[in-house]
Amino acid sequence: MTNEIIVKLPEENYPIVIGEGVRQRFSELFKKHGQGRAFWLSDKNIVAAWDENLGGLCSNSHTDIIVMPPGEEQKQIATIERVCQILVTMGAERGDTLVACGGGVVGDIGGFAASVYLRGIPCVQIPTTLLAMVDSSIGGKTGVDLPEGKNLIGSFHQPAFVLIDVEFLKTLNGRQFRSGFAEVVKTALIGDASLYRSIEQGADDRCFQRDAATLIETITACVKFKADIVAQDEKEAGLRRNLNFGHTIGHALEALGNYAALSHGEAVFWGMTVAVDLSVQHGSLNHEIGQTIHQLLERYLKVIPAIHFRPKEVMDLILNDKKTKAGKPHFVLLEDIGKPIVTDQISNVILSNALEHLKHRMKRIKESS
Amino acid sequence: MTNEIIVKLPEENYPIVIGEGVRQRFSELFKKHGQGRAFWLSDKNIVAAWDENLGGLCSNSHTDIIVMPPGEEQKQIATIERVCQILVTMGAERGDTLVACGGGVVGDIGGFAASVYLRGIPCVQIPTTLLAMVDSSIGGKTGVDLPEGKNLIGSFHQPAFVLIDVEFLKTLNGRQFRSGFAEVVKTALIGDASLYRSIEQGADDRCFQRDAATLIETITACVKFKADIVAQDEKEAGLRRNLNFGHTIGHALEALGNYAALSHGEAVFWGMTVAVDLSVQHGSLNHEIGQTIHQLLERYLKVIPAIHFRPKEVMDLILNDKKTKAGKPHFVLLEDIGKPIVTDQISNVILSNALEHLKHRMKRIKESS
Repeated sequence: MTNEIIVKLPEENYPIVIGEGVRQRFSELFKKHGQGRAFWLSDKNIVAAWDENLGGLCSNSHTDIIVMPPGEEQKQIATIERVCQILVTMGAERGDTLVACGGGVVGDIGGFAASVYLRGIPCVQIPTTLLAMVDSSIGGKTGVDLPEGKNLIGSFHQPAFVLIDVEFLKTLNGRQFRSGFAEVVKTALIGDASLYRSIEQGADDRCFQRDAATLIETITACVKFKADIVAQDEKEAGLRRNLNFGHTIGHALEALGNYAALSHGEAVFWGMTVAVDLSVQHGSLNHEIGQTIHQLLERYLKVIPAIHFRPKEVMDLILNDKKTKAGKPHFVLLEDIGKPIVTDQISNVILSNALEHLKHRMKRIKESS
Repeated sequence: MTNEIIVKLPEENYPIVIGEGVRQRFSELFKKHGQGRAFWLSDKNIVAAWDENLGGLCSNSHTDIIVMPPGEEQKQIATIERVCQILVTMGAERGDTLVACGGGVVGDIGGFAASVYLRGIPCVQIPTTLLAMVDSSIGGKTGVDLPEGKNLIGSFHQPAFVLIDVEFLKTLNGRQFRSGFAEVVKTALIGDASLYRSIEQGADDRCFQRDAATLIETITACVKFKADIVAQDEKEAGLRRNLNFGHTIGHALEALGNYAALSHGEAVFWGMTVAVDLSVQHGSLNHEIGQTIHQLLERYLKVIPAIHFRPKEVMDLILNDKKTKAGKPHFVLLEDIGKPIVTDQISNVILSNALEHLKHRMKRIKESS
């Protein structure tokens, strides 16, 4: 089974192809949607786990791969400069294409470098982690970090196409996979009640066991949802904000753990429990539905790390978030499974209480597991 | 007299306002075309020549100015990072605007930083040099250099508006002014025969004397011409290539002089003499017209520096230019004053001869002046 989803944008459409072993179709897709020659960017882990042809991906492209070191700390503007310098050395010209094959960092660096090299060349995204497949490779957001915060420099650069081969997921460890699954659960909660039901009924277990058919189905649902939002709101003017469900608190927790104690997905899992609490407190979500969501989230929370934090620290970070408009934080809450709302009507007292509640929840879950 | 030219782009239109003392209209224009708060970028020379309010420009904006060191060597990605870091510290948010007030470097850094800060905020261009007024501030091209070459990293980022106050030209020295005038002569040659006639009849002298009315008229002609090309070819697919008249050789000479012996405009002046020679050699331009153009160019060539070079070095640089497609350099030539053509049919022999000719011309002009 191979699925194809078309992202429809004002300037042009591009396909996202999802399947098992679909990396074999790279040449065919590149001929149709690519431009010029393909120049490759990947990281040492991918090359080590697969081979120098990235599992047969680039055997026909006759150009070398730029292999960067792995890790979040590569997400800095100096890496962009280095990639561009290597592209010059390799002779990449206007109208050639940069193909980014890897996780979120490779995708971000590849997309951003492509958007500024010679004032912009096309790029192709080939995500190899679950997080990148369901989230970061879709939508054209690219970025690097500053000491002052994450993703403060970047661009919107839509790929020529996205190729999602679920076979790449075989080399992820449990923690990496689970971390990506946070975005799957988020998608279900804010936009796809039937995906939520299928997870409740065990699709998550089959995904964790790397069952190809379930993975393709689950990833396709997430991609479809995100592609649809991106098509309606390419530059994040409004609707795209729903995707931040669980992320306002999640980003703050991730930062408090110095981006080491908690992975992005783990922080988002904790962030989603707070968002559910706030939704019930705010009166938008029925208490019972809140409880069933908490039950599902606990499946994952039991096995992810907790961190120590003071609610005040989290609040300070939220009020300094770059997405904060005029000092008022916006929160994405739920009215029902699959129905998000955005509000700035959360008082500091309610937020502070919800963060105290999170501390207790972390403690309880960690003591019982 | 104040002129206003509208740049018409598919996504949106923006005005370029040209006049004497028009910086006083900044607040009014910002209210209409700007967004959020204005954050300022300028350089030490501008602040020294004017004042900390940039001649009254930013007295109402209540934010500090980012003052960068002057000079081409600032055109590097590290400067972009630093500007973005300061913007974070100042609290610049999505929907705020970066106003770049300065020469080409400030405009490039400001435009590029705005295009990537928080994945893109609006910018305003307030050029203070003749080169920036007639060329670099118009068209949305931004960029920084790599050790491997100039402008290899950048973006297309159209400003919200451009404000051209000819009073800023009072602080330019003769060499800086003349350098910018190369782009005026280029505009006349490739697109505006009546501008050419007015220069022939002495508009250049009045410009050099900073006569406001002549400056406004001359700059307006150049801006109109470039805005029209940009509107038709925003991303430099074809038509915009005409603007490279004199630049293929010019860039190479500039590089050979390590960007110190010759300024950009001086290199373009020499480059234009070669382009005229090639046009005659190629058979597209009548020999007599070629001679009258050479006569006009000599007015400036007499007072600008010459450099030592070997034709082979220049040829090597041209063949490695980023604009070279598949190893074949394109040249913009003339069929008549105001009528450019683009060709890749210039043999290496003809090019080499033209460069030998340039050596002799430099020698003769320098000996006679």
